Amino acid sequence: MDPLDAAMKKCGADAFVHYATGEDADMRYLTRFVMHDSFVFFKRRRQPGTIIVPQMEAERASRESTAAVMTRTQAGLPDITKKEKDPWKATAQMISGQAGKTLLVSPELPAALLRALDEHGRVIVDAGTVGQVRAKKSPEEIRLMQEVQKKTEHAMALGISLISHATVRRGILYHNGAPLTSELVRVAMHKQLMDEGCRAVETIISCAGDTAFPHIIGSGPLKPHAPIVIDMFPRDEATGYYADMTRTVSKGKPDKQIAEMYVAVREAQKIGISHIKAGVTGAEAHNAVVDYFKSRGYESDTQGFIHNLGHGVGLQVHELPTVGPAGTVLEAGHVVTVEPGLYYPGVGGVRLEDMGVVRAGKFVDFTQCEETLIV
Amino acid sequence: MDPLDAAMKKCGADAFVHYATGEDADMRYLTRFVMHDSFVFFKRRRQPGTIIVPQMEAERASRESTAAVMTRTQAGLPDITKKEKDPWKATAQMISGQAGKTLLVSPELPAALLRALDEHGRVIVDAGTVGQVRAKKSPEEIRLMQEVQKKTEHAMALGISLISHATVRRGILYHNGAPLTSELVRVAMHKQLMDEGCRAVETIISCAGDTAFPHIIGSGPLKPHAPIVIDMFPRDEATGYYADMTRTVSKGKPDKQIAEMYVAVREAQKIGISHIKAGVTGAEAHNAVVDYFKSRGYESDTQGFIHNLGHGVGLQVHELPTVGPAGTVLEAGHVVTVEPGLYYPGVGGVRLEDMGVVRAGKFVDFTQCEETLIV
Repeated sequence: MDPLDAAMKKCGADAFVHYATGEDADMRYLTRFVMHDSFVFFKRRRQPGTIIVPQMEAERASRESTAAVMTRTQAGLPDITKKEKDPWKATAQMISGQAGKTLLVSPELPAALLRALDEHGRVIVDAGTVGQVRAKKSPEEIRLMQEVQKKTEHAMALGISLISHATVRRGILYHNGAPLTSELVRVAMHKQLMDEGCRAVETIISCAGDTAFPHIIGSGPLKPHAPIVIDMFPRDEATGYYADMTRTVSKGKPDKQIAEMYVAVREAQKIGISHIKAGVTGAEAHNAVVDYFKSRGYESDTQGFIHNLGHGVGLQVHELPTVGPAGTVLEAGHVVTVEPGLYYPGVGGVRLEDMGVVRAGKFVDFTQCEETLIV
Repeated sequence: MDPLDAAMKKCGADAFVHYATGEDADMRYLTRFVMHDSFVFFKRRRQPGTIIVPQMEAERASRESTAAVMTRTQAGLPDITKKEKDPWKATAQMISGQAGKTLLVSPELPAALLRALDEHGRVIVDAGTVGQVRAKKSPEEIRLMQEVQKKTEHAMALGISLISHATVRRGILYHNGAPLTSELVRVAMHKQLMDEGCRAVETIISCAGDTAFPHIIGSGPLKPHAPIVIDMFPRDEATGYYADMTRTVSKGKPDKQIAEMYVAVREAQKIGISHIKAGVTGAEAHNAVVDYFKSRGYESDTQGFIHNLGHGVGLQVHELPTVGPAGTVLEAGHVVTVEPGLYYPGVGGVRLEDMGVVRAGKFVDFTQCEETLIV
C-alpha cells in the first residue's frame, strides 16, 4: 500500500495535506513542481495527489507537476475570500472543502494553517511519512545522485588543482600574479558546476585556524603549510538532487598535529564505511568511529569529533537517515555521507566526506576522488 | 516598543519562538545567521533574542549571529532526550524550559512542534509580526537592495546584448556559430552575477509561445521576431537581499499584436508607478492598471493581465506588501515591484518589471535599464 494511504488508514484520515513552496523537499518529492510561493497539496485516500495553484501557474503546473492541478478559483477561493479576510482561515476553508474533514497533515505544515484547520474538523499531524519514504532512493534517484557526485568531483579536482598549482609568496598562495583566495576558488568551482547544469552555494573553502570550526565558509587569501577544507554540496539544477563531499588538503607540509589528524580521519572513514550496511544502525557506525578516535587519543565532545558521522542526502542536503548517536536502522537504498572530522581550536581541522548508497552487505561509495593531504 | 514585545504584551506571552533554517527569511532577519539545519530562536519580553544551535555551530554562530547563542547542551537537550525519544517533543520541552509557559509562536512554526508545545502551556500563533516589520526597509536595507538591482541591470544588459548581437539563420538566433539558447544566455548572466557576489537561479528566458505563461523558465534556441521575456531575481550572496526585474525584447520586429501589447504594458507600468505612494493601497494601484487595460481592450481574468501588479521584495523575492486586489495600505519604506504583463496563449506574453521604494508622495524607482522592445 502507498505509505501515505497506510498512514491515513491508520488514523482514519480522509486525506493528507501539505502546504509549502516547491523548494520544500517533501513538496518537490510529492509533485516534482517548483513554485516560489506556497501552495497546497492534498491526496485523498487511494487517489492521486492534487495541487492547488494560482491561475498564472496553471499551465506550467499541468506541464511540470506529477500531481493533478486545480486552480484556486476552481477550488472556490475567490468566493471564500469574499467573507473570510484572514488568508490562513480562507486557505483552511478551501482545503477542508476539497480534502475532507479528517486530515493528516505534514509535520512541517505552518502553525497558523494548523490552527485554522483545527476549526474545520479533526487534524492529525503526521510523524514524517514523506521524509521516511524519501530516504529510500529508487534506482533512478541513485543514478541522478551519482551523476551529481561525479560533477562535484570534477569541481573538487579544479579547486584542488588551483591550490596545488599556486605559487607561495610572503606566506600566502598566488595564482596568475594575484593572491589565491577562498572566494576565487569558490567562484571557479561554482562556474564549472554551472556549465554542468548544477548549482552550488556556500561551498566551504576554509583555511588554517578557521578549519577548526566545521561550517565556517572561509574568506581571503589561502595559506601554505595549513589545512584547507573544501566541503561542497551542489544540486542538479533540473532535478534538485544533491551531492555532498569534502576533502582536506595542504599546499606543502602542514604541522605534525594536522598530519596525524589526517591519518586518523582517513582511517576513521574506512572504519565508518566498513560498518555501514543494511540492518546496522547509524548509531553503531557512528560509535565505531568514536571508539576508534578514542583509541588514538581524540575525544568526541566539545572538541575533537564534534558532529555526526554522516547524514542522508537527496532532495535536501541533510535528510534522513541519521548516521549519528540517534541513528536508527540503515536500509538498502539509503544514500548517506560518511564524514568523520577532527577539530581543535588553535590547531585546525580535518574532514573527509564521501557519499554512497547503503546495500545489503556493504556501503557502495559514489566518490572516486583520491584522498591526499599534501598537494 | 519593539514590535515583538508589543505583540507579546498584547497576548500575555512570556516569549516569542521561531523554528526554521537560516534560509527562512524571518529567521535570517531575526538572527542574520544562516544554518542549513533547523534551529530555535526565542526572545523573552524586553530581552534580546537567543538562538539554540548544535555544538559544532556554536563558534560560527557567536561570530555571525546578531542573537545571543546557546548550545543545545546548554539548553538541556541531552538530558531531555534520555527520556523523550520523539525529537519534536524533546525540542518542545527544551523550548519550554528556556522560553516560558505562555508562548507566541511564528505562523510558520512546524505543526508538529506546535502540537508538542501545546502540551507545555498556552501557545498563541502570531499573525505575522516579523513579516510586517521586514516589509519596511531601513536606509541600509534600501542601499543593499539598490546595489543588487544595479548588478541585476548589468546582467540584464549582458543578456539583451547577446540577443541583439546574435545573427539569424533558419529561424533561430546564433552566437559564435552556435544556436543561442535560453540556457546559454542564463548561464552567461548568472556567471557575471557570481563575479559580482550575487546568486541568481531559475532566471526566466522564455521565447515566443512560452511567454504566454508567466513562469515558464524557457529552454532551447531563441527565435527572432518573437517576444523574449527575461525575468531575474538575484540575491546578494552575503546579505541575502533580493532584486527583481523583467524586460521583454524581440530580435527584429515581432507580430503587430505583441508590439501593441508592449505599448500597453509600458503605459500600464507608468500608470501603476504613478499610483504608488505612501497611504495608497496596493489594491488601488492594481485596479488602476486593470482599468487601463480594460480601456485598451485587454481583460484581467484567465488571460490578459493574470497576476498581481507587484509584490514586496527583501530577504524573500516575494514578501509583504501585496500589490494586488488584496493589497492594503502602502507605507514609506516598502520596497515593491511594479510589473504589469499581458498573456495570450497562441500569441505570447509581455512583462515589464521595475523595483523601487515607496515614499511619501511617490515611488522611487531603483531601475534605470531602458525599455525597448526591438533589439
